[in-house]
Amino acid sequence: MTKTISGANLGGTAEGFDVPETMKAWVLGDPEELTLVDKPVPTPGAAEVLVRIDAIAVCATDIEIIRHGPPAQIEGGLPFNKNFTPGHEYMGTVVKLGPGVDEYRLGDRVTVEIHAGCGRCERCRMGMYTSCLNYGENYEGHNKGHRANGFTTDGGFAQYAVNNVNTLVHVPDDMSDEEATLVVTAGTAMYGLDALGGLVAGEPLVVTGPGPIGLMGVAVGKALGADPVILTGTRDSRLEMGIKLGADHVVNVRNEDPVEAVNRITAGKGVHYVLECSGAPNALNEAAKMVNRGGKICLAAFPGAPVPVDVAHLVRNNIYVFGIRGEGKSATHRAAAFMKQKRFDASIIHTHTFALEDVPEALRYARERIEDAIKVVVKMR
Amino acid sequence: MTKTISGANLGGTAEGFDVPETMKAWVLGDPEELTLVDKPVPTPGAAEVLVRIDAIAVCATDIEIIRHGPPAQIEGGLPFNKNFTPGHEYMGTVVKLGPGVDEYRLGDRVTVEIHAGCGRCERCRMGMYTSCLNYGENYEGHNKGHRANGFTTDGGFAQYAVNNVNTLVHVPDDMSDEEATLVVTAGTAMYGLDALGGLVAGEPLVVTGPGPIGLMGVAVGKALGADPVILTGTRDSRLEMGIKLGADHVVNVRNEDPVEAVNRITAGKGVHYVLECSGAPNALNEAAKMVNRGGKICLAAFPGAPVPVDVAHLVRNNIYVFGIRGEGKSATHRAAAFMKQKRFDASIIHTHTFALEDVPEALRYARERIEDAIKVVVKMR
Amino acid sequence: MTKTISGANLGGTAEGFDVPETMKAWVLGDPEELTLVDKPVPTPGAAEVLVRIDAIAVCATDIEIIRHGPPAQIEGGLPFNKNFTPGHEYMGTVVKLGPGVDEYRLGDRVTVEIHAGCGRCERCRMGMYTSCLNYGENYEGHNKGHRANGFTTDGGFAQYAVNNVNTLVHVPDDMSDEEATLVVTAGTAMYGLDALGGLVAGEPLVVTGPGPIGLMGVAVGKALGADPVILTGTRDSRLEMGIKLGADHVVNVRNEDPVEAVNRITAGKGVHYVLECSGAPNALNEAAKMVNRGGKICLAAFPGAPVPVDVAHLVRNNIYVFGIRGEGKSATHRAAAFMKQKRFDASIIHTHTFALEDVPEALRYARERIEDAIKVVVKMR
Amino acid sequence: MTKTISGANLGGTAEGFDVPETMKAWVLGDPEELTLVDKPVPTPGAAEVLVRIDAIAVCATDIEIIRHGPPAQIEGGLPFNKNFTPGHEYMGTVVKLGPGVDEYRLGDRVTVEIHAGCGRCERCRMGMYTSCLNYGENYEGHNKGHRANGFTTDGGFAQYAVNNVNTLVHVPDDMSDEEATLVVTAGTAMYGLDALGGLVAGEPLVVTGPGPIGLMGVAVGKALGADPVILTGTRDSRLEMGIKLGADHVVNVRNEDPVEAVNRITAGKGVHYVLECSGAPNALNEAAKMVNRGGKICLAAFPGAPVPVDVAHLVRNNIYVFGIRGEGKSATHRAAAFMKQKRFDASIIHTHTFALEDVPEALRYARERIEDAIKVVVKMR
Repeated sequence: MTKTISGANLGGTAEGFDVPETMKAWVLGDPEELTLVDKPVPTPGAAEVLVRIDAIAVCATDIEIIRHGPPAQIEGGLPFNKNFTPGHEYMGTVVKLGPGVDEYRLGDRVTVEIHAGCGRCERCRMGMYTSCLNYGENYEGHNKGHRANGFTTDGGFAQYAVNNVNTLVHVPDDMSDEEATLVVTAGTAMYGLDALGGLVAGEPLVVTGPGPIGLMGVAVGKALGADPVILTGTRDSRLEMGIKLGADHVVNVRNEDPVEAVNRITAGKGVHYVLECSGAPNALNEAAKMVNRGGKICLAAFPGAPVPVDVAHLVRNNIYVFGIRGEGKSATHRAAAFMKQKRFDASIIHTHTFALEDVPEALRYARERIEDAIKVVVKMR
Repeated sequence: MTKTISGANLGGTAEGFDVPETMKAWVLGDPEELTLVDKPVPTPGAAEVLVRIDAIAVCATDIEIIRHGPPAQIEGGLPFNKNFTPGHEYMGTVVKLGPGVDEYRLGDRVTVEIHAGCGRCERCRMGMYTSCLNYGENYEGHNKGHRANGFTTDGGFAQYAVNNVNTLVHVPDDMSDEEATLVVTAGTAMYGLDALGGLVAGEPLVVTGPGPIGLMGVAVGKALGADPVILTGTRDSRLEMGIKLGADHVVNVRNEDPVEAVNRITAGKGVHYVLECSGAPNALNEAAKMVNRGGKICLAAFPGAPVPVDVAHLVRNNIYVFGIRGEGKSATHRAAAFMKQKRFDASIIHTHTFALEDVPEALRYARERIEDAIKVVVKMR
Repeated sequence: MTKTISGANLGGTAEGFDVPETMKAWVLGDPEELTLVDKPVPTPGAAEVLVRIDAIAVCATDIEIIRHGPPAQIEGGLPFNKNFTPGHEYMGTVVKLGPGVDEYRLGDRVTVEIHAGCGRCERCRMGMYTSCLNYGENYEGHNKGHRANGFTTDGGFAQYAVNNVNTLVHVPDDMSDEEATLVVTAGTAMYGLDALGGLVAGEPLVVTGPGPIGLMGVAVGKALGADPVILTGTRDSRLEMGIKLGADHVVNVRNEDPVEAVNRITAGKGVHYVLECSGAPNALNEAAKMVNRGGKICLAAFPGAPVPVDVAHLVRNNIYVFGIRGEGKSATHRAAAFMKQKRFDASIIHTHTFALEDVPEALRYARERIEDAIKVVVKMR
Repeated sequence: MTKTISGANLGGTAEGFDVPETMKAWVLGDPEELTLVDKPVPTPGAAEVLVRIDAIAVCATDIEIIRHGPPAQIEGGLPFNKNFTPGHEYMGTVVKLGPGVDEYRLGDRVTVEIHAGCGRCERCRMGMYTSCLNYGENYEGHNKGHRANGFTTDGGFAQYAVNNVNTLVHVPDDMSDEEATLVVTAGTAMYGLDALGGLVAGEPLVVTGPGPIGLMGVAVGKALGADPVILTGTRDSRLEMGIKLGADHVVNVRNEDPVEAVNRITAGKGVHYVLECSGAPNALNEAAKMVNRGGKICLAAFPGAPVPVDVAHLVRNNIYVFGIRGEGKSATHRAAAFMKQKRFDASIIHTHTFALEDVPEALRYARERIEDAIKVVVKMR
């Protein structure tokens, strides 16, 4: 292709996007101690932009981080991440460009994925940036460049955040701010389906657990043509939402054993794929009984403690199990494309909206599932 | 999974499907000499069924076969395939089961893909049954079991045909016979997209050539989420059909250079994938200029004679080129799933219908593109 | 390629290979009840040959089958497999060809892999013949064509056995009968390395468990260039054998915690791959701590009962776990190529030899590991 | 894994590696005008080290670059690359670390691959760093971070060069400087074999063209277990070298048609893979006749102008063609592992040695193949 070499971008802001010197941001002190403070607005470096945050959704992981610090990436663990702004499911507007950035323009609406790999470890070299071997190595003197918004670097419960260009996804004009915060959730589901091979059209898929990732797994699996899509869960309200998002069958596991239900629905053949999003203690064993020989299981959720697993069944039946972290392989872009094309209405899982000042209340709604909250969004504007 | 072991099928027909002893079939004599004769209805063997043909579409390859014999699978070539019934894009009803068949039931509506591999060569062992190394080896004393409906074994311009169970795809109740004949065409396009990696959602795709495979390529590419989908061709009527099937942009190459058009549409970035369905002499070179570095090209069509190719450009830009034969990797099942789910309306490429007696006229319409014929269907009932 | 069409093979035997009408074969009665009987020599069908068995090795699975019947492929299980000849790690000479067979000639020395898929299920169509969905469906009236030597169809503790051509591998002249019986074991290890991606050169690999498959895993992993190869186990004699087969480091887990040892050897980086061949209860958890983020684990062995597994660790670290069954993807041919090329000396794991009459004693040596037996071979000639 | 967090590296040199302020370097003026000048020694930035160059081999591409500028990455082309130091096949010693670098230590012997991707384009995100979409975008104001030693950034015909850590490969103690310069050539061959799927053990491979990459292709193909490996070429001396490196058969195309020879050697079956390293005008067509249906061809060389290609043959036979650029997917590390393990003796292709002052003479030997020169090495110490 011919390539237009345009004028150099030496960094800067454009008219119409006056960036203040300070901003409001929620900052973590001791566990569960969040304070709304004034902080300097950060400056984007090379390959980075400044995003004015317009909306952010609450993820269950945010609640974990606020309580216990970031997931233990490093055995022994990072110390509790004090003086840090959590939150990672955000979207907003590009208001300042780091030097050399021309992939995005000022004023672009963007939503973000979490991980920017270091670009220099063996996994990043392979394109596996959510498995970066330098995860969290972005402190003074150890800066390998890895960033994970709201996990290891400042996140989105604030007015502004710096983002690597690798984490940005364009938001189309006709997608609302609220819906755009859900792109990364759909991206995680898509990454799970990528791990399963991606070519699921015409093949049966079970999604276990109708949380946000599970519901997006139904939607993305159906968009990719999986047939049938079976959703299992414990709450009828969630299962009904699954039907709206494309599930062909739903199974309330309080009423029917899920393995027997899958057996019934598939006339004893079992399915090719299970996307496990429940984290239930027996979920992996059940998934292994739902798939037929040579089947594949993606684990997008997990129980908090070790659980008994029938390893023999996995081996005897040539079953592959894919643990996934994050939303790798640019899956977020694929998920965003389906949402742009209106293949499913992700916004139905958005149930509540709060203002930036009310982040603690938003977290409480999400944590306690008040009024059957699924996705709670903090809207800045 | 528990598996129900049902009563043994020792072969046979069911009530309501009286199969006659003879049938009407078009039989090839010398090149272009087709005669409608009475022939014995064939008997399905192990892993086979008898299909009562309800409809069959004409493919450009049928016209080639009738003129020149089957594509030269074996250098030096098979002799001209006399006393043989051509036609491969057919659908119908299962009316008799070979011994041991329980994958299908009498009365099932099915559409068919072309190839049943030998199951014993290195390619079949890998799952590449359309690249069977025993292609055509199904004659007396050399029977390795390969079958290609209407290419090497009797096809569908007849009232009945035997099919290996591997070639069958279920047709849903609400899909018309005519639409069902198009599944294999969509399956070929899907196989092309499989070769390109399949994970095309959110990535740009050019389809060159709006023939039946190209138009189905647009439809399947869009169903998989490609964005944008660009279709190039020479006739506005076909390009308009492409828009109906999901193309985001169409380019009439009589009005604009297609490489420049792709450059314009993609703002100089080029695309990741080209599905080449035109067979034009310069199509591969143009495709190579449409893709960006690391891009992939699938060739589903080809010019009749060697053409100049800029091999250096392919190497310098790390471009992969995938020649595809047929509709491998069970892609037909994936395509059928999208059609069942009404992701696109394949039936708009069906333009004309004839009766079994009128096969020569149907072939003439297809060959000469009379009244802008695209898919001409012969309907039996 | 031009293809020579040779004279038709209508089946038959050649001079010099007089096949008797009856043969000696060990037949299973009730559990653990083996009797040496005279049986008719079986006749090869289409795509089959008759193999005169020259040598057979004892596998731990044989002992399981003799005790408990075939591994429970079908929940609820097949009934105990009475009147059946076990044994699957055999090699011999082709003495009779089924009709149409020209892939092998009379007199060819061959070794065999276990599985011939049905060729008509979804897994076989994908090339996954060891995950055949019609496993065991080869009884009267249910014959889908699946065969698994010594598992579901008569095996090799006999003078002759019928084999599908898909299961045969040529044995070079300079490979002994005894060594040739080990090809399928190396093939299983190779299949495990295939599941891990195959491109292991220059990347660190741990093999846990120095049984026959583990030791072949060391050899094949090293032949593929893995670096370093680390072997863990409990017995120094086996670990020394591992060094002879290419291990760069061995760890006796009685002396050092294996996870700490891997951490020490890799300077805290961990490995990319673990091939688990021990079946130890904590092996999967340990493997998960040995690999770094994004690592892959292949399970070629398993504990007899469910074990606690830290699923959270798999998910948080994007770890993939591949249960494998058998020796799929033609891996046996790859393993045989390395053995033909003398990349490693598989014969060092062959420790004892018996005659056909002494099969019970051979089984006892293998089961009780008498005189530190690893591979016990029954030699017919 | 537990991870040791060591003291921060803030950049710097160690005792014993006094780095001067200026160095000798060959600099390109007008085409073919090379001058030995004194230049400042460059300073490594983040993720970079300074390498003291100990040896460098001459590649045919160097000669092209000196004559015509870098390969036209951007249509229309970069201007001729004046005031630039060419040379990319070098090895040396790490003498200074950029800030934050702890992957390498001062004094490490390293050899280098060419490409460091930008890390921020779609291809780099996928791990395809040699197909970086920001190739050459490393000028003032357009710096996206891409580097290609001796192509777009200063290379190795000099005493020192800066390298991104991603381009470094450790050299073992017992590998000579000269042999270490050949690692990247073997890495390119390995990348070609990676493109072909990598799992070539036991499968037939043809390498066409016994230049340095072709000869390394033979060696690496054999190390991976390909069987047989067939090498074609025009000069017996080169073919003999191929035999030393592992070729099972060689064909002098002056004496025998190469397609017929492959047909003869494989008994009419053809091969699964061709690695094309000749750049001959008819090489792709011949390769397409050497492979069987479903075969794969990697193009590592190319003719200077468009050539006639039988595209129909590629499509009818489901042949895939992989153009490769550079030595992607960390293939250099895999090649280095085989060389470290002494699987083949790469040093036999090293034929001549010169001093830094004699670079023009070294280039002349390589260009004119004086005394049958293959790899000409410039040795600094």
